[in-house]
Amino acid sequence: MSRKEEYIKLFIDKLPKRLEKGKLEKIISTLDEFHPADIAEVLRQTSTDSAISIIRLLGEDVRADVVAELEPEERETILKELPATEIAESVLKEMDSDDAADLISELPEDKKTSVIEAIEDTEQVQDILDLLTYDENTAGSLMAKELIKVKENWTVKQCEYELRKQAQEVEDVHTVYVVDNLDKLVGVLSLKALIINDENVEIKAISNKDIISIKATDESKEASRLMDKYDLVVLPVINESRQLVGRITIDDVVDVIVEEAEKDYQMLSGISEDVESSDNVWQLTRARFPWLLVGMLGGIFGAMVIGFFENGVNPALMAFIPLIVAMGGNVGIQSSALVVQGLANQTLSGSITSKLFKELGVGIVNGILCAFLLLLVNILIGHETLSYSFAISASLLSVIVFAAVFGTWIPLFFHRLRIDPALATGPFITTANDIFGLILYFYICKLLI
Amino acid sequence: MSRKEEYIKLFIDKLPKRLEKGKLEKIISTLDEFHPADIAEVLRQTSTDSAISIIRLLGEDVRADVVAELEPEERETILKELPATEIAESVLKEMDSDDAADLISELPEDKKTSVIEAIEDTEQVQDILDLLTYDENTAGSLMAKELIKVKENWTVKQCEYELRKQAQEVEDVHTVYVVDNLDKLVGVLSLKALIINDENVEIKAISNKDIISIKATDESKEASRLMDKYDLVVLPVINESRQLVGRITIDDVVDVIVEEAEKDYQMLSGISEDVESSDNVWQLTRARFPWLLVGMLGGIFGAMVIGFFENGVNPALMAFIPLIVAMGGNVGIQSSALVVQGLANQTLSGSITSKLFKELGVGIVNGILCAFLLLLVNILIGHETLSYSFAISASLLSVIVFAAVFGTWIPLFFHRLRIDPALATGPFITTANDIFGLILYFYICKLLI
Repeated sequence: MSRKEEYIKLFIDKLPKRLEKGKLEKIISTLDEFHPADIAEVLRQTSTDSAISIIRLLGEDVRADVVAELEPEERETILKELPATEIAESVLKEMDSDDAADLISELPEDKKTSVIEAIEDTEQVQDILDLLTYDENTAGSLMAKELIKVKENWTVKQCEYELRKQAQEVEDVHTVYVVDNLDKLVGVLSLKALIINDENVEIKAISNKDIISIKATDESKEASRLMDKYDLVVLPVINESRQLVGRITIDDVVDVIVEEAEKDYQMLSGISEDVESSDNVWQLTRARFPWLLVGMLGGIFGAMVIGFFENGVNPALMAFIPLIVAMGGNVGIQSSALVVQGLANQTLSGSITSKLFKELGVGIVNGILCAFLLLLVNILIGHETLSYSFAISASLLSVIVFAAVFGTWIPLFFHRLRIDPALATGPFITTANDIFGLILYFYICKLLI
Repeated sequence: MSRKEEYIKLFIDKLPKRLEKGKLEKIISTLDEFHPADIAEVLRQTSTDSAISIIRLLGEDVRADVVAELEPEERETILKELPATEIAESVLKEMDSDDAADLISELPEDKKTSVIEAIEDTEQVQDILDLLTYDENTAGSLMAKELIKVKENWTVKQCEYELRKQAQEVEDVHTVYVVDNLDKLVGVLSLKALIINDENVEIKAISNKDIISIKATDESKEASRLMDKYDLVVLPVINESRQLVGRITIDDVVDVIVEEAEKDYQMLSGISEDVESSDNVWQLTRARFPWLLVGMLGGIFGAMVIGFFENGVNPALMAFIPLIVAMGGNVGIQSSALVVQGLANQTLSGSITSKLFKELGVGIVNGILCAFLLLLVNILIGHETLSYSFAISASLLSVIVFAAVFGTWIPLFFHRLRIDPALATGPFITTANDIFGLILYFYICKLLI
C-alpha cells in the first residue's frame, strides 16, 4: 500500500465521525486531493445517503470519473436515488462515451429512456446510442468514441492546433489517428512524432501506415489478443467500410482478460455464476447449487452402478472405490484444464487426434506409475490376495487412461460445437469420470478375478 | 484473425518450400513489412538453422525486437548457437534494457559473463547489471531504464528539445518524468500537455504533482494492482531516496496478471509446474504426477478407513461412498476457489471468523437442499429403509457443511502462514475432504442406525 493509500485508509476510518458531525465541506476539501479511484473507495465505505451528498458536492469532471470507477452494483444503488435529469446533466455530461454507455445500459428500461431524453448535447446522445447497439462481447462494446482524428494532408502545425482544440474533450491521448477524405483510417501517429518533427512536415510523411485495427463487430476477445500480441496501449476500431468509429484502451482490455480468467477459474471450481466471496449467502448458494446438483445426480447414478455389481463381487473391493473415483476425477480435471487453458491462450496446435494420442501417452505413464505403487502397497501392507491386488491396479490404470483421454476430448468437442469449453471442466468431468470409473473398475475386477 | 495475419499464415505455409530453394533474400524483403511479433511467429515455424539465418539478415532494431518477442525456450535454442560477441553486438545493442536483462538472465552462467563483457556501451552494461540485481517478483524486475526525464525548472521548449535528443533511444513515450536537482521524482507530464502549452511555460507549472509510483523493491503484484486501480499505462519506479530509477509499462504487467491467473488455474486443476498442452509427454507427466500421488495416498488412507468400518455397517451403505466423497470434494473446491480468487483480486474483506460463519451458512443451505433431495430419491425409488435413508442424508449434510468450512479455512490459514493459498485448492482439498468425509459418513450412520 502506498503512503497515499495509507492516508486514505485513515481518512475512511475517521469518516463516520465526521459525517455524524456534518462536516461535509471539510470532507470535500480533503477529497479534492484524491484520485477518483480513491474517492470511489471512500464512497464504498459510507451509506448511500452520505455517498450521494458527497457526489453532489464534487467538481463536475471528478464526479463523472468517480461514478465511472464505482462497481456496477454500487452505481446502481446510487443512481436509483437520483432523478433522470440530474444523472444526465451532472453525472453523464463530463463522462467518457464508453463509461456513459455502460452506465445507461445498467439502468432499468424506463429510466434509460428518460435519462437519454434529458441529455442536452445531441452529439453525446448520438455517441451513446451508437455504442449501445453493440453486443456485449464485441469490440464495439469496449470502445470509446473520444479520439483525436486528423487528415492525412494536414501539416504537423495544423495537427497540433486540432489537438489543442480537441484536448479538453479527450483525456488520455496516446495516439492521433490519420484519416483520408472519406474518413477511412489510413495511418496512426504517435504524439512523440508530432513533437520531434518540424511543424511544416505533412502528416502523410510521418504517420505509420502499418495499422493494426479491429472491426467493431469482432469479438472482444480478439481485441485483447491483438493488443497483447502487438503490445498496444490503444487499438483503433473501424466499421465495415474501414471508417474510424472509436478506440479501445488497454485498461478495458485488461478488465476483459481478468474477467475471462476469473470465469474459467470459477467454472473449474464448479461455480456457475460470477460471484465473489463478499456476496451474500443466497447469491453464493445460487451460484454453487447447480453444479452440486450435477454431482448429486452422478452420485445417485454411481450408487445404482455399485448396487448392480454389489452382489457379484467381493466386498473388499468396496474399500478402493474412493481411490478409483478420486484418481479418475483428478486426472480428468488435469487434462481438461490444460485443454481449456490452451484454447484460452491460443497455444493449442496440431490436430485433435494428435492431442488425444499425447494424452493417451501421459495417461499410460501416470497410470502405470500409480498402478505399480498401489500394487506395491497392497502386496506389502494390504490384506488382499495377489490376484485382487493385480485386478485393482489394472483397473486403476484403465480408469486413469480413460479419464485422461476423455478429459481431453470433451472440451475439444465442446469447442467444436461452439459451446464454452470451460463448461467441460470441474464437476462435469469429475461426475462423468466417477460413473465411467466405477463401471470400468467393477467390470475389470470381475473379468480378472 | 486480421487480413494481415491471414497473409502471414499463408506466408508461413509457403516458407519451407522457399527455404528449400534458398530464397532467403526474398523472404527477408517480405518479412521487412511484418511486425516483430509476426516475424517471431514465422521463426517459430522454421528450423533453428533457418531461424538463425533469417535473424542475421534482419535490420538491427527489428532483430532486437524479434528476439525479445520469442518465448524464453525458443530464444534459448537460438542463442545457444550464437557466439557471445554476436549476441552482444547484434542482438542486445538495440534492445530495451528490460528485455536485455531478461535475455541475459536466461543464459547459462558462463555465457552470461562473456556476453556482458562483450557489450561495448558501458551505460548499457550498467543498466543491465542494475536490473539483474532485482528479485524475480519485485517491481524492479519488470522495469525498463529507458525514459524521458526533464528538470522541473525547464520550459516546454527545453523539454521538447530534450525529447528530440532522447527520442531515438526511447521507443514508446507516454509520459515525461519531472525530477528536481537531486533526481527525485516530483511530477509527471503528459505529451499532450507539452503540445497544448506554450513553449515558454515552465514545466513546474503544468506538471502533475500527484504522482503514483512504486518502489523498485516492492512486489510485482503491487505494480499490477496500482496500474489496474489507477488505469495507468506506465508506472514510474523509484528507489528508497525517491529517485527515479525506471518505468514499468502496462504490457509487462498484463503478462504478470496472465501468469498469476494461469498459475492459480493450474493449481486448482492439480498441475504443479507451469506446462502447456503443447509440452512433451515427459514434461506433462512430471507436472501432473505429484498431485496424483497425493490423491493416491489419500485413496489408500480412505481404503483403510472403509476397512475399519466395513464389518460393523450394512454393505448397502457402500453404494453411497462415491456420492459422499464427490459432494465433499465439490463443495470444498468451490469454497477454497472463492477464497483464493478473493485473495488474488483483493476483494476479501472482514475477519476470518465472519467468513467462516458465512460459509457455514452457505454450507447449511446447500447441504439441506442436497440432503432433502437425496432423501426424496431414496424414499421414492431407493431400496433402503427409512432409517437408512435418514442416516445417509444426515451424513451428507454434515459432510457438505464440514467441506464448506474446511475449504474456506485452509487457504486463509495458508495465506496467514505466507504459503501460497492456491496450493490449498485442487487435489489437496479434495483428498483431505475424501478422508474426513468417509469418517464422518460412517460415524454418523453408525450413530443413527
